Amino acid sequence: MSVHAKLAALGIALPRATAPVAAFVPAVRTGNLIFVSGHIARRDGAVVAGKLGADLTTAQGRDAARGIAVDLLGTLHAAAGDLDRVERIVKLLVLVNCTPDFTEAHLVANGASELLNEVLGPAGAHARSAFGVAQVPLGSCVEIELVAQVR
Amino acid sequence: MSVHAKLAALGIALPRATAPVAAFVPAVRTGNLIFVSGHIARRDGAVVAGKLGADLTTAQGRDAARGIAVDLLGTLHAAAGDLDRVERIVKLLVLVNCTPDFTEAHLVANGASELLNEVLGPAGAHARSAFGVAQVPLGSCVEIELVAQVR
Amino acid sequence: MSVHAKLAALGIALPRATAPVAAFVPAVRTGNLIFVSGHIARRDGAVVAGKLGADLTTAQGRDAARGIAVDLLGTLHAAAGDLDRVERIVKLLVLVNCTPDFTEAHLVANGASELLNEVLGPAGAHARSAFGVAQVPLGSCVEIELVAQVR
Repeated sequence: MSVHAKLAALGIALPRATAPVAAFVPAVRTGNLIFVSGHIARRDGAVVAGKLGADLTTAQGRDAARGIAVDLLGTLHAAAGDLDRVERIVKLLVLVNCTPDFTEAHLVANGASELLNEVLGPAGAHARSAFGVAQVPLGSCVEIELVAQVR
Repeated sequence: MSVHAKLAALGIALPRATAPVAAFVPAVRTGNLIFVSGHIARRDGAVVAGKLGADLTTAQGRDAARGIAVDLLGTLHAAAGDLDRVERIVKLLVLVNCTPDFTEAHLVANGASELLNEVLGPAGAHARSAFGVAQVPLGSCVEIELVAQVR
Repeated sequence: MSVHAKLAALGIALPRATAPVAAFVPAVRTGNLIFVSGHIARRDGAVVAGKLGADLTTAQGRDAARGIAVDLLGTLHAAAGDLDRVERIVKLLVLVNCTPDFTEAHLVANGASELLNEVLGPAGAHARSAFGVAQVPLGSCVEIELVAQVR
């Protein structure tokens, strides 16, 4: 089943490519690697704000991370020409906006990792670091950046 | 206009290359990528210390980030042989030392991103992640690492 | 002296490769780069938990970072086929779980950097970023990810 068929089967519509912003760009390709900028959590355009350990449950953080992974795929689709050209998700960096005592950043990050595995299969198996940070731009509960290998 | 002419037009003198330190090096080249170590904020040799959200305004943090970008260019100049060999700034990781409620890490990071765009033009357009951290070595208000593609 | 001879001289046994986990993998190779997932601090299988600046001294954090570097070498050995194929440690990202006033993340990170230099010699000289974070999965005192170049 193609990547696009899997997305359809999961009921996921790729977002349009992120509009270019002033000071940086959504993704840069160098050789056959694409470095995707950190994406924050949005739902219907609004930032999903709050801290894990205070304002959101781990399950809510995991949902937010899954949503970010969909947005990252949208950016990757635009940067690669097509998502079919992605050979491998190489690495995720998952930043969880949390209180100093929240020790489940890895469970939040699983929301993104599992989505990538569902959509891309073996090509979605990636290295990863996840940890808790003091804050994220605009108060987003999670931020994720990604490196992918394309053909 | 060459990179060096742009630096001169902006009144920016490249710092001398960072002295090698004991446990790690300022930059490593692998293939045509250069990974530059995290640089902290210094002015006249002294660390610009403090937390965004408590000790420094967003504008002060932005100035510090701009200063770090100049230092990163100095390190990149030494690592690449010459700044003219930089084909693309690939990615920045911008760490803002801040209180748990400071949500403007992206505005602080713009100080670095805009400097790179001013000096390098289209080659300065990069991917980026910015977020708030609990602390930075020596209490620096900001730390930035960089990946660049060189010829 | 070979890498394995140096490890033996230092009395270090490489750990067995990390067991694959559900949502992500310990390392991904792309071209001649290997991206290794963030590793947390463990001793005899148990997580070394706590915050620098409150629960652990800088020396204890440094020891934990050294232990993580050994584990990273174990993962790298498995991912590269053999540690002898590592041409260069390219970059470390060192995340120190700490209080908001702990400014010695670089000294903690030296525990990992020095171990890599001892074992790999010039091939161990790497770029690095180190900073303090709000938390780490399972409360680990340190987390480290690594990029290496292999032949």
